[in-house]
Order: sequence, then structure tokens, then C-alpha cells
Amino acid sequence: MKIAVDAMGGDHAPAEVVKGAVLAAREHGVEVALVGERAVLEEEVKKVDTSGLLLSIVNASDVIRDGESPVTAFQDKPDASISVAIRMVKGGEADSAVSMGSTGAVLVSAMEILGKLDGVRRPSAGGFICNFAPKTMVFDLGPNADCRVRDLLNFAVIGSVVVRKTLHIDNPTVALLSNGAEEGKGNVLVKKAYPLFKQSGLNFIGNVEGRDIPFDRANVIVCDGFSGNILLKFCEGLGEVSIEWLKKKLEGKLPAEEVASIGKELFDLTHAVRGGGPIFGLDGMVIIGHGSSLAPQVAEAIGMARMLAEANLVTEIKQELAKIKCED
Amino acid sequence: MKIAVDAMGGDHAPAEVVKGAVLAAREHGVEVALVGERAVLEEEVKKVDTSGLLLSIVNASDVIRDGESPVTAFQDKPDASISVAIRMVKGGEADSAVSMGSTGAVLVSAMEILGKLDGVRRPSAGGFICNFAPKTMVFDLGPNADCRVRDLLNFAVIGSVVVRKTLHIDNPTVALLSNGAEEGKGNVLVKKAYPLFKQSGLNFIGNVEGRDIPFDRANVIVCDGFSGNILLKFCEGLGEVSIEWLKKKLEGKLPAEEVASIGKELFDLTHAVRGGGPIFGLDGMVIIGHGSSLAPQVAEAIGMARMLAEANLVTEIKQELAKIKCED
Repeated sequence: MKIAVDAMGGDHAPAEVVKGAVLAAREHGVEVALVGERAVLEEEVKKVDTSGLLLSIVNASDVIRDGESPVTAFQDKPDASISVAIRMVKGGEADSAVSMGSTGAVLVSAMEILGKLDGVRRPSAGGFICNFAPKTMVFDLGPNADCRVRDLLNFAVIGSVVVRKTLHIDNPTVALLSNGAEEGKGNVLVKKAYPLFKQSGLNFIGNVEGRDIPFDRANVIVCDGFSGNILLKFCEGLGEVSIEWLKKKLEGKLPAEEVASIGKELFDLTHAVRGGGPIFGLDGMVIIGHGSSLAPQVAEAIGMARMLAEANLVTEIKQELAKIKCED
Repeated sequence: MKIAVDAMGGDHAPAEVVKGAVLAAREHGVEVALVGERAVLEEEVKKVDTSGLLLSIVNASDVIRDGESPVTAFQDKPDASISVAIRMVKGGEADSAVSMGSTGAVLVSAMEILGKLDGVRRPSAGGFICNFAPKTMVFDLGPNADCRVRDLLNFAVIGSVVVRKTLHIDNPTVALLSNGAEEGKGNVLVKKAYPLFKQSGLNFIGNVEGRDIPFDRANVIVCDGFSGNILLKFCEGLGEVSIEWLKKKLEGKLPAEEVASIGKELFDLTHAVRGGGPIFGLDGMVIIGHGSSLAPQVAEAIGMARMLAEANLVTEIKQELAKIKCED
């Protein structure tokens, strides 16, 4: 199991990425290929203790910077670290790629190099919205702001595979996120999707409302990426104002360390997406980490990449997507 | 200032509605017309002390029940309590109408009797999503699941008037809810709306993200009713799981009453829509209360009806909507 890590991408690259890779290699025994300018990376690697670790450097002479047009950059810089890392997945030299670089550039490189699975228009992102509901994942969380019914079906299929393989839930329940629980509630998209979900062979339980999300009412909640992204970020914001309010309430009533620890716990419960997230719907596994990641978040993203590669998600998703019949 | 109250609508009508009206009349000095079957209401009124209150009964011989088709019921029951109450607003005998009855029936009756203002396709709902942000109202919160650009502009104009007149903020800031702060982020609708918001003469500050909502970053946040409804309900759900979690955390560490009081406060902060909400975009003011309302919530809805009628919202909204130029 080898993970290709774009060592040049992210606000704190290469130093924190290299440190994170070392952390992942040491703690989880992952084999990591650091991709980037060899001379630069060799310097960074010298600064840390890499004894006994499965750590290699793969040269990539170019870097795509934040703010560059993803499409142009991909075309003009074939030897960019992002592209080289993803080509390792394509060529079978790595099981998964990780980048904290420009999200747009990672998406474009991944789509172009790995290719989209049948019926997929754009890669999708999914995961937990809050950690109050450890058996509920929401798809899509961002890339697909405007969806067709087929996109929603894809998210449902992908989500079901992900939940089955990573949460080990046998026959995951699937729901459409809507503005009412009853059939017939929803915007045009949800109303059109409902009957097709019913016939899909998925374990479809109908619509859920926003209030159901933190209560683990469905394992896979499907929505367009616009709604998913807004919810995810609202959860973070609401968590933060709640923590500030709570700290004031408890100040002087509980020991300061206890107040801090309660605040930290609530932060973790309301900030589910941390190290980064996988993108789905492509013929290969890629993890996009947060640009602001420090070594621990980089290590977390690498750990996630290994877990997902081991679960052999892509093969399963490909098989399940091929079964969907939908013209819309 | 007289408020027409549909005394037959809601899960606990007429008893709790009558009690709520008495409460509102006593506490706020509101003049209330109770609309419904005279004999039934006279019986209810006898049970409570109405001395010195401005309380009258207006007969309506029919009632629209939950589950009836709103359109058919409106046509078949011209003397339904909802319709009679709203006709009092239309005829100038009441300044505002309040109903805890079927939301669909209230919407249809209100649209048919009062009429929509120029450029409005459906009435809209707006208000606070959470009470952490007392200077931020979100429009739409439900009725308009699918929107065109013109609808979003209407919400922005209505929201600006509501914030100006009820929160007394002079030149309210307006933002589009989106999946990214930069111009160019959003779904197709938001991207199309952005340049028109810029030219609108509103105090438009650009896009905000979900995380900005609880931080009072804009006075009027505009979104389609599907997103708004999901956010509102997610806030309630997240509040409830947070309260359960918090109670367990604090149990045995603080006095039980104090834990309960903190829980109650967090409930109030995350449940912003309580007594009910006004609907906007019609040529007259109507408040839809929750079907489950008990007397205190009924009184709250009546208090809100009076406050909004006093603010003379409809006239201002009509003037401002007439200024919008938008073909889409």
C-alpha cells in the first residue's frame, strides 16, 4: 500500500507536508512517496528522523500555485507535482494520491488523468457533516453545485458503497434531503428524483429534513453540493458561536481546564471535515486536504487515503454505478 | 390596531387560541377579533376572564381541516374561518390576520384574497435562523423551493424593509448565501443573481457562506426557500443534540436547575421561529402560527402581527418592489 503525496501543495508546503508524511509513515506504517522538486524535498527530509520508514522521493519539476487557472495550469505544467502524484495512481505505482494544493487544480488533474466513471459528470465529495451522527454521511458536500437526477443517484450509490465499506453497515439506508418528510415535498430536483430513488434498488427510506441530520436517521443523505456545502459550513459556524457562548456561561463555575476541554469536544463534534476529504466518481482514489493543513492534518489525510485504498472503493463504486439506469 | 385571529385553526383550537388571544389582549392591549363559529367561541370565551379587554367574535360558519386540498377547500368553503379573517384585512376591518391552521390553506386564501404584489410569484417567509445572530434575517425560509433571480431580488427588497422597520437598522447589508465568498462562486442561480444584486441599489456586500450566518455578517441573507428551510431545521436539530450532549457533560458538576437553565437557553438560541412567522409579498399582512401552538405561542403570534402592522410593512414593501427592474 503506497500513497503518493503532493509535497509542494498547501500553505505550509513542503515543510509541514514532509513532517506529516513522516508522522503517517511512523504511526500507521504507511509507505509514502513524496512528490516534488527532488533537491527541495531532500533538504526537508534531512531535517527529520526518517529511520526505518518507507519514504521515497519522486521528482516533479513544477508546481501549480493557488490562483492559477486549473485548466491552463494542468495543460502548461505536465510535470507539476499534483499531476505526477495522480499519474502514479493511474499507472498503478501508488494506491491513492493526496494533495493539499489548489482544489481546482487537483480536481482538474484528477478528472483528466484518472477519468470519470460511467455516468459521472463531475467528481463528488461526501462525508460527515457533524460528529453527533457517526453513522450518517452526506453526499455531495461541494463540487456539484447544480445537479441533475442522475447526479443524485450517483451520490446515493457512491455513498452506499462508502458507508458499507468504511462504516461496515451492511445495507445502508439512503434518504433525500428535502424541505419536508412526505413524498411530494421538495424542490423540482428532489421531486423528480424521489420516484427514481424508489425504483433504484437502493435501501431508500424517503425524504429527511435538515433537523434529522444530527440524529442518524439515515446512513446516506443525498443532496446537491450547494446545499451540502452550506450545511457543512453552517454547522462549523454554529459550533463556534455555541462554544463562545458556553465558555461564558461556564466561566467561574467549572475549572478552566474543564471548560476548555468541553469547548474542544464541542468543536470536534461540529467540525467533521478536518484533514481533508476524498473525491469520488473517478477511476482512482484522490484525497484533497485543506490548504491550511499542518503536519497532523497531513498525516490524517494520508491515513484516510490508505484506509480508503484498502477498502477497494473504486472497484466497487465502478460496478455499482454501471447498474444505474437513468436518462436524466 | 385590530388583529383578526382564526380561532378554529391549529391542533389546540379553539381553546388555546382563545386563551392566547386573551393573553395578548391583556398583556399587550391588542384588540382581537376571534373568527369562527360564534356559538363555539362564545362557550370558550365564557371560560376565561375577558373583563376590560377589546375582544370581539366574528362569525365564520366553516373550517378548513388539515389534509384538505388547500385550493379545493378555499373554493368550496368561502365562509371558512381562515378566509373570513383574511377578508377582514382586505376590507380594512383588521390590520393583520393570524392563523395556526393548515399552512397550505392559509397561503392559498391569503394569495387569493389579498393578491400578490407586483413581480411576486409566491409569498415568501423570512426571519431569524438562530438567535446567536440577532441582526441577521434570512429570506426565504420555505415557500419558494425553486427560485428565479427575480424571486431572490424580491426577498432582498422585502428583507431590507423588514430589517429596517423591525430591527431599526438604517441601511441593512444584503448578502447572497453561497458555497464560497468570492464573486463567481455559487450555483447557477446565485451566479446569475450576483451582478443584478450589484446593480440593484441595495446595500449588497457580496456572498456569505453557511458559517457566516450565526456571526451577524449581513443583516439580510438571501437564499432559495429549499436551502433556507433545510438550514432552519438543521439548526434546531443540532441545537437539540447539543443540549442532550451538554446535559450529560454537566450532570453532577453543576446544580440540576443550572444545567436545565443552560439547556433551555441553548434551546432558545437555536429555535428562532417559535410563535409563527409572517408571510410577505402580499397586499396585506398575515401571520402563520405553528399548528401545535399553545396559548403563549398564540399570544406571541398576535403580538408579532401587531408589531408588523404598526410598522406599516406592506406599504413600504409595495413601493420598494415596484422599483425592481429584472426580466428573469
